[in-house]
Parts: sequence; C-alpha cells; structure tokens
Amino acid sequence: MKSNENGEKEKEKQKPKIRFNALNLTNINQRVLAAQYAVRGELVIIADKMQREISEGKRTDLKKIVFCNIGNPQAVGQKPLTFIRQVLSLMEYPELLHNPNISSIYPPDAIARANEYMDDSKCGVGAYSNSQGFDFVLKDIADFIERRDGYKANPKNIFLSNGASEGIQMFLNTIIRNEIDGVMLPIPQYPLYSALLSLLGGKRVDYYLDENKGWGLCMEELENSLMAARKDGTNVRAIVVINPGNPTGQCLEVENMKEIIKFCHKQDIILIADEVYQENIYVEGKKFTSFRKVLYDMGDEYKDVQLFSCHSVSKGFLGECGQRGGYFELINFDEDVRDQIYKYASTRLCPNTIGQIVISIMTRPPKEGEPSYELYQKERNYILTELKERSILLTEELNKIPGIHCERPQGAMYIFPNVTLPPKFIEEAKKMGKQPDFLWAKHILEGAGVCVVPGSGFGQKPGTYHFRTTFLSDKESLKEATSRMKEVQEKIIKDYS
Amino acid sequence: MKSNENGEKEKEKQKPKIRFNALNLTNINQRVLAAQYAVRGELVIIADKMQREISEGKRTDLKKIVFCNIGNPQAVGQKPLTFIRQVLSLMEYPELLHNPNISSIYPPDAIARANEYMDDSKCGVGAYSNSQGFDFVLKDIADFIERRDGYKANPKNIFLSNGASEGIQMFLNTIIRNEIDGVMLPIPQYPLYSALLSLLGGKRVDYYLDENKGWGLCMEELENSLMAARKDGTNVRAIVVINPGNPTGQCLEVENMKEIIKFCHKQDIILIADEVYQENIYVEGKKFTSFRKVLYDMGDEYKDVQLFSCHSVSKGFLGECGQRGGYFELINFDEDVRDQIYKYASTRLCPNTIGQIVISIMTRPPKEGEPSYELYQKERNYILTELKERSILLTEELNKIPGIHCERPQGAMYIFPNVTLPPKFIEEAKKMGKQPDFLWAKHILEGAGVCVVPGSGFGQKPGTYHFRTTFLSDKESLKEATSRMKEVQEKIIKDYS
Repeated sequence: MKSNENGEKEKEKQKPKIRFNALNLTNINQRVLAAQYAVRGELVIIADKMQREISEGKRTDLKKIVFCNIGNPQAVGQKPLTFIRQVLSLMEYPELLHNPNISSIYPPDAIARANEYMDDSKCGVGAYSNSQGFDFVLKDIADFIERRDGYKANPKNIFLSNGASEGIQMFLNTIIRNEIDGVMLPIPQYPLYSALLSLLGGKRVDYYLDENKGWGLCMEELENSLMAARKDGTNVRAIVVINPGNPTGQCLEVENMKEIIKFCHKQDIILIADEVYQENIYVEGKKFTSFRKVLYDMGDEYKDVQLFSCHSVSKGFLGECGQRGGYFELINFDEDVRDQIYKYASTRLCPNTIGQIVISIMTRPPKEGEPSYELYQKERNYILTELKERSILLTEELNKIPGIHCERPQGAMYIFPNVTLPPKFIEEAKKMGKQPDFLWAKHILEGAGVCVVPGSGFGQKPGTYHFRTTFLSDKESLKEATSRMKEVQEKIIKDYS
Repeated sequence: MKSNENGEKEKEKQKPKIRFNALNLTNINQRVLAAQYAVRGELVIIADKMQREISEGKRTDLKKIVFCNIGNPQAVGQKPLTFIRQVLSLMEYPELLHNPNISSIYPPDAIARANEYMDDSKCGVGAYSNSQGFDFVLKDIADFIERRDGYKANPKNIFLSNGASEGIQMFLNTIIRNEIDGVMLPIPQYPLYSALLSLLGGKRVDYYLDENKGWGLCMEELENSLMAARKDGTNVRAIVVINPGNPTGQCLEVENMKEIIKFCHKQDIILIADEVYQENIYVEGKKFTSFRKVLYDMGDEYKDVQLFSCHSVSKGFLGECGQRGGYFELINFDEDVRDQIYKYASTRLCPNTIGQIVISIMTRPPKEGEPSYELYQKERNYILTELKERSILLTEELNKIPGIHCERPQGAMYIFPNVTLPPKFIEEAKKMGKQPDFLWAKHILEGAGVCVVPGSGFGQKPGTYHFRTTFLSDKESLKEATSRMKEVQEKIIKDYS
C-alpha cells in the first residue's frame, strides 16, 4: 500500500500539475465577480478601519466616524420599540410566562401577545415554520394590507422572507431565465437590484429619474428606455419602482402611479414595487399610496397587471435591521406560479422566526385602549418626527457647502445631493482610474470622517456627480459632519481650482 | 384626455392581446421549475391538511400526525437549552439588564453574557452586523474550531449565514458558471444540493453510497462516477460529502476521509463538507472528526485541497431550527475569492443577528464552574441520550415490519430503511405515473398518519425503494407510529400479493 502510494506520488511529481479548478478570480462564476454593491464597498472597509484606529486612540484628529452610508438606524442610536422587544424577549424565553413576578416586569398586553404567539406557533420560535411563514403572521399581514388599501388580501399570496432583500432575490430568480431577459431599473437605484441582475445574468435596463423634477418619474423616459432595450433584443419582463425612492426620497403621486400601471398593462411588464419606506414620509400633504391600491382602484381592466410588492421591518420607524424580517405579496399571479415560488422558498426551509414575529407586530401594533398603545405611539412619533427634522436640517446644512445642491427629501431615509467637482479634480480621478465621486467620497471620509456612498454606486446621468447620505444620525452629529465636510470641500475647491 | 384614452382602448380591443410576459409555468425560469425538494413536497401539504382535520375534529381515526419528514426537533417536543434562551431573551429586551430584580430571574452568567454581547455588538441585535457576521461571533467560532481540531482558525475565513443552507447556496453560486460545471453528490443525498444545482443550472454528478456497507463511501465508485462525468464533458468542480450522513446516518472513518481528500487532491476538486450533524453520534466508539482536521493532519502536500465546511444551530442538541443560525469556513482559498464571497454576502446585508448569537453560544457554551454549566450539560445529555435511545428503538420497531429493513444509524437524525414492495404495487404506481415509494409513503401517511419522505426524493439505486424518517419524536409516538405503519404495510402486502 505504502509503496504503491509512493509510486503514484513519483508519477505525479514528474508531470507538472495544472490546477484548473482551484478557485480564483478567473474561474469563479463571473456573474459574482461582476456584481457591485457600493453600499458596503471599499469605502466602508476604510471607514471601519478608521473607526478602529479612533477607538484605539491611534487617530485623534477625529472624534468618530459618522456612518451615513447605510439605512441602519439602530447602529446610529435609534432605540427599538419597547413593545416589540418585550414580546420577542418573552418568545425567546417562554419560561418567563410562568414566572409569578412576570407582571411586574412586562405589561399585560405584551404577555398576552407572547402567549398568543406561543399558542399559534405551537412550539415557539425554535422550530422551522412552514416555508411561506407562520400562518398567523400571514393573516396579520393580510389584515394590515386590507386596512391600508381597502381591498381584501389573501394570505396565500404573501411570503415572509429574511428581510425584503431575500424576497426580491427569489422573485428576480423566478423571472430571469437568460441574458436576454431584462428588468427596468430606476437610475439612481438601490444597488441591490443591479447586483442581483448581475448575479442572475439578466439584463439591466436603465431609466433615469428626473433630478430637475425632484427625481420624478417621467413616462416618456420609460417608453424610450423600453423601446431602446427591445430594439437591442432584450425581453423586458419587469420594471422596478422604489416608492418612496431610494436613494432619492421622492414619493410618487397617484396620477403618476396610474401612468406606470398603464405602461405595465400596455407593455405586458410585471411591476416590482419596492415599498419598504411606506411609513417614511416627511412632507406635509404627501401621503404614501400603495401600487396595489392604485391598481385595484383602476378596476378590472387592469387585473392582468402582475404586481410584486415588498415591505420590511428594517425601515419605517422600527429600524429592526438585524432581525431580518420582510415579506412580499404577489398580486394577479397564477396559483401555479405561486406554487413554484413556494417550492423555491422551501429550499431555504423558512425565514427566521423572530423576524416573522416582528412583522406580525409591525402589522398589528397595540390598539388604542391597550396598555402599550400610548408608549408605542409615543416612540413611533418621536422617531418619525426626529427623522423629519433631521432630513430638514441635513438638507439645509448640505446646501451651505459650496458645490453641493439638494432638495429636501419627501420620504425614505436618504438625500442624494448633486456635487459640482472642479474639472482638475475630475481629471485627477480619471488618471487614477477612479470614479470622480468615489474619489470625492474618499476625501470626505478621510478628511471629515463622514462615510457616504458615491453616486456612481447608484447610477447617475453621465457627467453629473452625487452621493447618498442617510439622515439617521442625531442632529449634533449631522451638524458636526456637515461642518467638517464643508472644510474638506472648500479645500478640494481651493486645491483643484 | 378621456376621449384619447377611450380611443386607445378601442384600438387595443381590436387587436387580440398576446401576453408573453405574464408569468406562467412555461415562461418562468425553468431552473426553478426543475428544482425538487421532497422534504417539503406534496406529502407534507397533505399531512398538514390531515392534521388540521384532526385538530378540528373532522377526522377521528387518528389521534395526530407523527411528522417524521424533517429534522425539526422542537416541532416534535424537544425543549430549547435554557441558557441559550435566557441570553437571547435579554438581548431582545436589554432594558431588563437594568432591572433591579433581574438576578432573581436570570442566572449571573446569562446576565454577564448578555452584557458582554451588548458591549461587543455596540447596539445589540437590532442593527445590521457587518456582512460576514459580528466580529466577536466569528472569533468564538474560530476558537471552537481550534479546540475541536487542534489547528488555529482565521475568523476572516468564516462567514455566518441564515442557517447552513444559505451558505451552501452562496458557495455553489460562486463555483457554478454554466451547465458544464458539475458537483458530485452522494446518492442518497439531502435534496438541498440537487435543488440548488437545478436552480443554478449546474450539472449533478451522482455517486452511490453502498447500502450493503452501512451506506459507506467507496473510492472506486467515486472514481467511476468522476470519469463517467468527465467523459460526458462535465467539468467537475466539487464533491459534496455529508458527514454524518443525511439521510443515511453513517459516520465516516478517518481512513476513508483521507482517501476522499487524496481523491480531491489528485483530481483537483473542491471538497464541500456538510458537517451539520457533527454533534449527533450515537454509536459507542464512533467519533466525529472534521475534514479540516484530517486535511491538516495530512500535511503540506495537501494544502492545495480547497475545503468548504458548514455547521448549524438547527441540528446537534440545540435544534434551534427557527432561529436560522449557520456558518461556513473556507479553508485553503485565496483572499481574492474570499473577498468576492464577502461582496456577494453583503448584498443580503447580514445574517439575522439572533441566529448569530445562538452560534456564539453553541461554540462557547457555559464553562465548568460557571452557574449555568451543570444545567446546560444536563439538558445536552438528556437530548443526546434520548436521540440515541430513540434511534435504537425506531430501528428495532421498523425491522419488525415485514418488507422493511434498516441498520441502526451511527449519527445524524434519520433512518433510511429499505422497503420491499409487492410487484403489483410497483406496477400500480407506474400506471399512476407515480414513484412507487411515493405512493407507498402516501399510503403510510393516509393510513397510519405518519409523514415520511419517499427515498426517491433523496435518490436511490434503480429498483430499490426507501424512505427517510427522523427519530425525533418521543418513544411513545414512535411506537404508536410504527405499530400503525406495520398494519398498513401488512395490508399493502395482502392487497397486492
């Protein structure tokens, strides 16, 4: 045995070994290589490193890094809603429900809710739920949707997911068959969509939002974009509309939404409505309306329009990003197709159960008259009022910086300001092989300790430059951040003029 | 405006509308259609319906459905470990940490652990962690791996995931480029692998486990399977080995593992080691050894073998399926490749934070001398002893049923018995267009109220029939289930002889 082995070893040594399969950048799935996701890209890695240096006292020119790169409210100080966490805490340790002192710690409605969930789930959060999610959560979502839109929802058409992202990924995977299938994406867009299209090998069909009209959605642009794509041989299967917009914050008018639905109807295109910011509206007189409601309001003629709509516990006023709760609803889809998505969902067994419970509470919060109602409302209103005030403050402060211009966002959690860069700065970036706004954001990070995402990560009209910033940090931090950004920008203008 | 619209409507009515894009089974991604996942297939839907009927009193011939289709311990009565749930409960509601009565409810080490996690995570479980997972959890895993294998692990090579499934999906997506790339799968296999290969459009290369040698892995079979695939033009990139086996329960010997590693080395194939059942060994003298340890023990000559290994909180003695905690480690991979997987991981933002915390506790349980140590050990030992006894009992009971034969499983949570079916029964199934073992399992479900998965869902030698059953239910239920299965099987033999 031993000598045989050695004999084989000798033979192998004689022929040089060519390793084709050992993974490297040339032989991994090139669609993974092609995918880009700027929200957590190179700059964030630098920012994390800077933060560590500051914490360890190795860097003293900055007090802290202000992270404005990602909609992660609790990472920048937002407090979770008490009722939600009380219920989750009881779900994780249901022994507490039998503790005689429990009512001195938890309000009765939190205890009642946890007891109810324990009964409904039969075995709590430790077992897999069914693949679509707990039945009782699907029902809560259906009721929520009905209250919101005035039209009944069928729990069978709702799927829970690990955050909204997983649902979007599952749906795009269901519709993209090959490199000819395409999806229309707004530009600028939340880069999850372009990353997923890269991963799935589908075609990205860009349509531009109109910066001069508050990042509005213009039908002529949609038509032109679709026609150009079809001329190129792309089979456009769907259009993504993010409302309220990410990174742009615009909130669509019902009239505009009707036009989009008519467009989908006429052009036989599935509507993917990313509605995760539906609670985040900050401008008086503006109101979120779901695509589902608008579609149903338009009557039977439009019932052939297929609509995918998703929502999440990560945004709104909950900001429970880490708990990864999300759902999507399929409207006007065949049962056959739904069964296929169910089968697909079953390969990942189930969405995490705690995220599901958060969705249940989000869609069925304490009611008026219940013990936790007032606190829930107070916490909710504080968060939404703060977000509104911060969005106003940050818009004002950003507009004080030379070369930066932005409108006050109507919703969501972001501002997407325009930056005018000195021609010499642009030249230098190009010489370095970098996107000018990436280089600018790097200056801002390294000089001001503010982590924003360059506009090129979301897409923008050629020759224009932007960045995305959240307005989630407290006002003091935002003021400090913008004041330092102003210094850096003034220096850039001076150095490159 | 109105008249224009009507004009358009008229025009549209004239030409019949052909909808190419509305989703149906012919135009969805055919890879989704092709994917099969029997563990949650048609029979489970029937079983759920039967259970509802029993609960609602509409069906009285059965007391309950015994669900043996899925490794979901807490769904069939397993209790979660107290320490884990105490810590999670505090993490969800950290206000409790400031409650003066807290120490009358929680043991001091649970409080200390929750405080530690709150400090380390900075903002608890409500914020996104970084894409790979919390740094402090990665470190716990690395320490656990080092203690287990005696070789240092680098936290940078570890990724947390929503259950092990998500990690496997991410990795397969990274290596499968086209329909020529293939992965070797054991037959029978846990159908996640075949489902993912269908979804990704890669080639499945089967190798058979040897039922006559306790479902052992024979090198000649591996060589033959590989050669045949290569002859067919398949580029075999990786081999999946599930150890302890699912659905077969076998636990590999170190000598066998060395042969597999040599095979991977010689044939330039990545080794995907599914080691989620590493704690589930029930036979005296049998011991789990990780592929990582064997690989490192073999020395530098084999350091070109690339190994992916995954683990989970859903199995072992935790059975925390719903919390969706998992991780994988990349061994001998380039940093470049790891960075790509990091980027890919970042598109789903982060694995759910509660699942991460469960992984941390699993890999760093209470130590000897700490207040919760004894209870943790007691609960652990109770679960593992019960599982062992149940595996013995179920093997014995199954072997009493005519036509059913199985060996006692060495590990995991399943038995995969062989069923001899009457030729007439097989004929009838074929006439109905059904797999014979599917029809058999349907009889067992409808007649005995026991939900098992037909062997065809896992793959088996042509002409042989099997089913997979878990041994997770309590002994009383298992006895009752097998006694009813015996009746049904006897009736089948009588009716079809």
